[in-house]
Amino acid sequence: MAISNIRYGEGVTKEVGMDLQNLGARRVCLMTDKNLSQLPPVNAVLNSLAKYSINFQMYDNVRVEPTDQSFLDAIKFAKKGEFDAYVAVGGGSVIDTCKAANLYASSPTSDFLDYVNAPIGKGKPVTVPLKPLIAVPTTAGTGSETTGVAIFDFKELKVKTGIASRAIKPTLGIIDPLHTLSMPERIVANSGFDVLCHALESYTALPYNMRSPCPSNPINRPAYQGSNPISDVWAVHALRIVAKYLKRAIRNPEDCEARANMHLASAFAGIGFGNAGVHLCHGMSYPISGLVKTYKPKDYNVDHSLVPHGLSVVLTSPAVFAFTAQIHPERHLEAAEILGADIRTARIKDAGFILADTLRKFLFDLNVDDGLAAIGYSKADIPALVKGTLPQ
Amino acid sequence: MAISNIRYGEGVTKEVGMDLQNLGARRVCLMTDKNLSQLPPVNAVLNSLAKYSINFQMYDNVRVEPTDQSFLDAIKFAKKGEFDAYVAVGGGSVIDTCKAANLYASSPTSDFLDYVNAPIGKGKPVTVPLKPLIAVPTTAGTGSETTGVAIFDFKELKVKTGIASRAIKPTLGIIDPLHTLSMPERIVANSGFDVLCHALESYTALPYNMRSPCPSNPINRPAYQGSNPISDVWAVHALRIVAKYLKRAIRNPEDCEARANMHLASAFAGIGFGNAGVHLCHGMSYPISGLVKTYKPKDYNVDHSLVPHGLSVVLTSPAVFAFTAQIHPERHLEAAEILGADIRTARIKDAGFILADTLRKFLFDLNVDDGLAAIGYSKADIPALVKGTLPQ
Repeated sequence: MAISNIRYGEGVTKEVGMDLQNLGARRVCLMTDKNLSQLPPVNAVLNSLAKYSINFQMYDNVRVEPTDQSFLDAIKFAKKGEFDAYVAVGGGSVIDTCKAANLYASSPTSDFLDYVNAPIGKGKPVTVPLKPLIAVPTTAGTGSETTGVAIFDFKELKVKTGIASRAIKPTLGIIDPLHTLSMPERIVANSGFDVLCHALESYTALPYNMRSPCPSNPINRPAYQGSNPISDVWAVHALRIVAKYLKRAIRNPEDCEARANMHLASAFAGIGFGNAGVHLCHGMSYPISGLVKTYKPKDYNVDHSLVPHGLSVVLTSPAVFAFTAQIHPERHLEAAEILGADIRTARIKDAGFILADTLRKFLFDLNVDDGLAAIGYSKADIPALVKGTLPQ
Repeated sequence: MAISNIRYGEGVTKEVGMDLQNLGARRVCLMTDKNLSQLPPVNAVLNSLAKYSINFQMYDNVRVEPTDQSFLDAIKFAKKGEFDAYVAVGGGSVIDTCKAANLYASSPTSDFLDYVNAPIGKGKPVTVPLKPLIAVPTTAGTGSETTGVAIFDFKELKVKTGIASRAIKPTLGIIDPLHTLSMPERIVANSGFDVLCHALESYTALPYNMRSPCPSNPINRPAYQGSNPISDVWAVHALRIVAKYLKRAIRNPEDCEARANMHLASAFAGIGFGNAGVHLCHGMSYPISGLVKTYKPKDYNVDHSLVPHGLSVVLTSPAVFAFTAQIHPERHLEAAEILGADIRTARIKDAGFILADTLRKFLFDLNVDDGLAAIGYSKADIPALVKGTLPQ
């Protein structure tokens, strides 16, 4: 499996201009969103670009929870700019949008659906060379800086889908924990839940050697290969960090140790799920956020309704793991123990319920909305949610 | 930090011909040693090369514990062959020799000392492009398939030294645990000790942010950067595997689970130390093996005296960690606990002694030679051993 380059450390963003110089970049696209464009992470990048006299254009029109339309807008900007390198500063929305912009600007005659995952798109393999992309994550959630995946809402079908190819993986991820200190409480919580589910889902994903059909050539292996001994290292390690630091990171914005560790856990879980894949929590999350009605979450400064990705993922997690434990109960029990359950007298056949209860307690302590009803869904929405889940 | 591509699974070696086809290789150099050339791992590669009609030449003259002379012999072969890809099948000696052959064949006008580590060589950065190298490790020790390091005995000075550059890191490591089933008992033990020390030394190496001077440009960072949050993940995970599986792997050649896990641990520890570096056990090991007198280890089918690398490393480990604990006692205590010590009532100031005692017991159980005297050294050799250690 391939693992991205990452650089970690407080303040390392200030070297980004030098990285671009090292890459020989002459026309750089800096991509971010409107909120972030006024905040310290973007400022740090701008200062570095100025210091190293890097010629750049800024695109700050990224939509939080991007859509096909917002991707296309960024792609248009990228095509016009003829850039030779990209820097994405933001959460998963920004980094994913930048991956798509880089891809389609590098493959200008392609139709948008060509690279979108089947069955919604054509899922064509990427064979064109892309430009270097440096990702500077400002949330501790998606791990997008380490993955070859870009997710968006396909408005026409009201579902989330995406593009998945190793080719769109960032060249370098700059993990600078200083950027997480300005994150509001609910953004820390929701992005942390994404890390939690990346770790749990990739650790409990169907093992790589139980999947079929097996591709006849290794280069045709999908980006998501199933759980394997290497993704397991990252998943378990990320889960241990979440268990130790997520609550502290949410509750105290000045707890640098906790926020720095969650920032790393986000990248670690990203490396894990970016190779193993995720399963039901993420599969169901796409219609949960795609079909959003009027829910507007606290701490998100946006002009449209949205269910934050991490929240849409975590809400189903107790039910999911109660169900999936039958495949690999030992791992579910181990995960429960890492999250604080006392499993000394536990029976293996109760693994799913134990993990579900542990998660419910964990989420209750963190003031998570109480189920799908709390974000505006009723029983009448179940058929549409199911219909939106099945293509995943 | 950059992490190599690795592929893991029983029997995956049979895909190596397809990998070479995917790389567009037309003239392949297959490198191994005389013993291995008759054994199943090389056979598996030969069958795959035949199946995919890959044109190749075999070099089976690699020396176990290579020297500058043996490197030069392999380099000569590589230069003459004008290869466009390399496959190294063997332990660290084979993989390291192949890295050197690839490097100097790709930089034909360089003097041998140009790329050798200073102060013995000139330590020039590698700027030429190398050919792809696929490494198929047959021991569970060096982790050479994941590192940018090639070690050899510099005969004139009677010391070990090496070449260190990310540029010589293999393109792909194929971790096929079937290859470890033919390893004799002492080779499993000694290569396992190398894994143990890679993990312990990289976990206790000086942290990356306490080293100075800090390179002004990230591309000038050394291959060995000091311990860091990412190398720590690999080091601790590898140490846990060693604690659980090394004894089983040594004692029972048919314990596939244990040998497969040690094979992975070797790669994991390689990724860890390949980024963090190692310290005193490895530093002292170079004169210990470089100054060898008449010692010939059991289970090694060679015509010259040698102290196997893993043995030369582990013999000093109890003394080393008793000494280094003062820098980071918590980590030494944690390592002792992972290796089986009961630390519930331990005092932090005793961390070094506790880890040293734990290691002594661990090694005694595995019939390790009792100190340097057992491999032919006396007090009179101390000045020469010190002299050989200092340049490291």
